[in-house]
Amino acid sequence: MKKNVNLQTMMYPAPAVVASAYDKEGKADACTLAFASMISHVPPSIIIGINHSAKRKTLEDIVERGEFVVGFPSMEHVTETDYLGLDSGHDVDKLERVGFTTTKAQKVNAPIINEFKVSLECRVTHMVDIGSHKQITGEIVNVQADEEILNDKDMILVEKLDPIIYDDVSYRYFSLGEEKAKAFNTGLKYRE
Amino acid sequence: MKKNVNLQTMMYPAPAVVASAYDKEGKADACTLAFASMISHVPPSIIIGINHSAKRKTLEDIVERGEFVVGFPSMEHVTETDYLGLDSGHDVDKLERVGFTTTKAQKVNAPIINEFKVSLECRVTHMVDIGSHKQITGEIVNVQADEEILNDKDMILVEKLDPIIYDDVSYRYFSLGEEKAKAFNTGLKYRE
Repeated sequence: MKKNVNLQTMMYPAPAVVASAYDKEGKADACTLAFASMISHVPPSIIIGINHSAKRKTLEDIVERGEFVVGFPSMEHVTETDYLGLDSGHDVDKLERVGFTTTKAQKVNAPIINEFKVSLECRVTHMVDIGSHKQITGEIVNVQADEEILNDKDMILVEKLDPIIYDDVSYRYFSLGEEKAKAFNTGLKYRE
Repeated sequence: MKKNVNLQTMMYPAPAVVASAYDKEGKADACTLAFASMISHVPPSIIIGINHSAKRKTLEDIVERGEFVVGFPSMEHVTETDYLGLDSGHDVDKLERVGFTTTKAQKVNAPIINEFKVSLECRVTHMVDIGSHKQITGEIVNVQADEEILNDKDMILVEKLDPIIYDDVSYRYFSLGEEKAKAFNTGLKYRE
């Protein structure tokens, strides 16, 4: 039996990712986001949504610089990742507080968080305000990954990344479970 | 040691969701998407990306109608979900082929897939072409969920939904793993 439930934003699954950028003085800022998705294959692009009514310092940096990095935290850093979404860079140096270090990205002027095993270097290609959030589309111009999570063909293995899955309805973090099927493959049984 | 890897679109985790809409004759179409995210809390909104170079029939319907549904498949339907992304509604009645049935949504003129346990009824509020894909923002105007996945406060329990996690790098589907931490909570240890 279906019923109407609380009208709210949700996505199953949603990620917990971290956007990072430099401020006007070149200081690295970062904030955690659950509003993030792939959005175009050609050119490779992602989209993130950041609450523009919350005066997020990282958002100001991205709008100012037009360049940012999206890092994918592993579950071992769930506590640090959660904190990066709790406080504002206007009030505290969050990266210093959690003990994270940064290195300038190769293709954009934005900070890579060294502790994260996959980072996308992005250049803003489109922005629009939708309700409480700014939609920011970024073309991915470089991908950096830790060797330890790559296979022998340099392909990222998601199970080695151990990403964080976020539930915006119950406010809980979950880990990745087991591989269940091959995509563009299991469904072939329905082809005549 | 970090290294540059293949420059492609990725998100960890990414979902496998199904967009559905009616065509001009009122026939239900559906296609599987991995490009989907929450994008605004107020008003509650999601964004989806659909390849507009691939002549997706469901995309044509959404552009024509301005209304659509996003359903969240459970792992029990991974094979059906995979198939809905393989063929085109221009060539075959995919919903009929996998044995899915639909009911008209309550607040929008679009089909709910009855077999999915959570469905968002959406009205298009913004569209823009970015590269190979059309970015479509939809305001969520109603949420329908199966009673069996709700707790006693009518909150959706993601572990009962058992959503499909998709990896666009290795083309594999994964299940949800274990709950690891509470959000806006575990990070409080870094506050002074």
